[in-house]
Amino acid sequence: MTERHVWRLAKRPVGDIADGDLAYGAETLPDLHEGQFSLRVTYLSLDPTNRIWMSDQEQYMPPVGVGAPMRGGVCGRVVESRKAGVNPGELYAGLGEWADIMVTDGTGLSRLPEIPGIPLAEAFGTLGLVGPTAYFGLLDIGQPKPGETLVVSAAAGGVGQIVGQIGKIMGCRVIGIAGGKAKCDYVVETLGFDAAIDYKNEDVGAALDRLAPDGVDINFEQVGGPIMVEVLKRMKLFGRIPLCGMISSYNATTPTEPPGFWTMILMRRLSIRGFIVTDFAARFAESGQAMLGWMMEGKLKTRQDIRPGLENAATAVKDLYSGGNFGKLLVEVTPP
Amino acid sequence: MTERHVWRLAKRPVGDIADGDLAYGAETLPDLHEGQFSLRVTYLSLDPTNRIWMSDQEQYMPPVGVGAPMRGGVCGRVVESRKAGVNPGELYAGLGEWADIMVTDGTGLSRLPEIPGIPLAEAFGTLGLVGPTAYFGLLDIGQPKPGETLVVSAAAGGVGQIVGQIGKIMGCRVIGIAGGKAKCDYVVETLGFDAAIDYKNEDVGAALDRLAPDGVDINFEQVGGPIMVEVLKRMKLFGRIPLCGMISSYNATTPTEPPGFWTMILMRRLSIRGFIVTDFAARFAESGQAMLGWMMEGKLKTRQDIRPGLENAATAVKDLYSGGNFGKLLVEVTPP
Repeated sequence: MTERHVWRLAKRPVGDIADGDLAYGAETLPDLHEGQFSLRVTYLSLDPTNRIWMSDQEQYMPPVGVGAPMRGGVCGRVVESRKAGVNPGELYAGLGEWADIMVTDGTGLSRLPEIPGIPLAEAFGTLGLVGPTAYFGLLDIGQPKPGETLVVSAAAGGVGQIVGQIGKIMGCRVIGIAGGKAKCDYVVETLGFDAAIDYKNEDVGAALDRLAPDGVDINFEQVGGPIMVEVLKRMKLFGRIPLCGMISSYNATTPTEPPGFWTMILMRRLSIRGFIVTDFAARFAESGQAMLGWMMEGKLKTRQDIRPGLENAATAVKDLYSGGNFGKLLVEVTPP
Repeated sequence: MTERHVWRLAKRPVGDIADGDLAYGAETLPDLHEGQFSLRVTYLSLDPTNRIWMSDQEQYMPPVGVGAPMRGGVCGRVVESRKAGVNPGELYAGLGEWADIMVTDGTGLSRLPEIPGIPLAEAFGTLGLVGPTAYFGLLDIGQPKPGETLVVSAAAGGVGQIVGQIGKIMGCRVIGIAGGKAKCDYVVETLGFDAAIDYKNEDVGAALDRLAPDGVDINFEQVGGPIMVEVLKRMKLFGRIPLCGMISSYNATTPTEPPGFWTMILMRRLSIRGFIVTDFAARFAESGQAMLGWMMEGKLKTRQDIRPGLENAATAVKDLYSGGNFGKLLVEVTPP
């Protein structure tokens, strides 16, 4: 009998996630059945969509059931296996549980390559779900062309930092929107964005007028709310909006939709498309290969914000909704 | 010296088009310069976008200047030509003026084929600008697949009647929305739509629930307002919305945008794209050829609502905004 630790959804949050919405405890790891394996989680990925899964609002996969283990992106190593082709010590990543050990049949998980010279946190924080989110959202939906202006909100976050760098690789002029000087300096100086707007200390509309006087071709949208509205107003003819997230509304207790811009969508012939990374699951090998190449060439850097200790996950996740993370937010569950 | 009659924009309408916003009169036809020809207009096409052109709101081409001839879709025959390759008697169609004779260098006009056995009004009312609007909006943006459910608003209008029939050709289940029993009967019985909703006498939401219990894959949107909202709420996962028009708002004096549905666009991964027919100008030969083929096979029928007399154009155009037309609205300027 092995003990494991796990976070379960105790009740659905109302507004911000509160103490007691998630419950942490020890329990007995179930026995392995034929076709299953156990995975010791190294890193747990905390992502804005976690708050959606905790709710029962309309969403893109079933919400986490009350009483069930909290769902999360994970990477880890196989401990024991009763599944053909899966061997102890192998590295897997994908959708799992907020737990230190989990039993799985492998659904939602795939092999994560071991990359010489690149720490596991960085590989997972780039090639995990954030990577294909950025890759397919920008390339398939955003359709960037050299010389175009790309705006990315939540620019120093897990997805945003990758979107901006792929935009640069594609020859775009990239403007990031982030909160605070440190994040803005990071995306410009370390990641090579052309400019950044500090939404906590600048008038976003005025800054866009200055930095993108001809308007915006692509708005990679993750935030919603008043920042989204300022970017929308400045979309150019035939502009594209990959709609990746609306984090500003996830904790809202009353609807906070930005207004409709239907007439503008018509007159400027804008394209808007909502997407979820799993829509592109059949093509993850393509994104993984491309991004791994860019990492090896030094064109794709990512910063991880690593919080130690599974027991701290429920506190750490709140930082996503207040801008308290800087880079891809991970919990180190087991030392790598 | 030849006299012509023309409608000029006297002042920009506020709200509904009023008497005196457009002024009708006789004037001397200018002399032909080298590279120009004169066209005797047979039919003037009246289209919802006419109201946009009269305003100075944000729009997709320059508004008609106050004092300038009103812009409109026309077809007609060449009278005199000083342009190489253009000969008297030839048939042209495209963007022109609300006039009985116009002088042009041919910009915005192209040859309209003479189709044996098909009256000119029907050829123009199908292959004029309404045809490619329906064709590219539905096929390129809507991406219809067999068995999918297509909803088309303004179903008995110039574009709507074509959209629905192309949808049937593509194997979709087609639901039209139109005002009144006669229009609803027409799209089902004559055009072969699967069903129609009479928005003047039925609860559109309840009718959609009954006719499309699994939801809507494609909403070909021309109307906006509360009808659009009812369709939006019922969009299926991965649904597409070709945004062709928002006629319910064109006469509004205060903004009447439908609300934003950003969270739903994200969660259901909807695609929305605004378009104007001229965006596809380079491919008009493709749409013309396909639609001509369907017309010859009897798969594409259109109804024209023909009003005689150029002097009645300013009265007739108002019917577009009250649902007073039944079929493609044309003014017969000169007997064909």
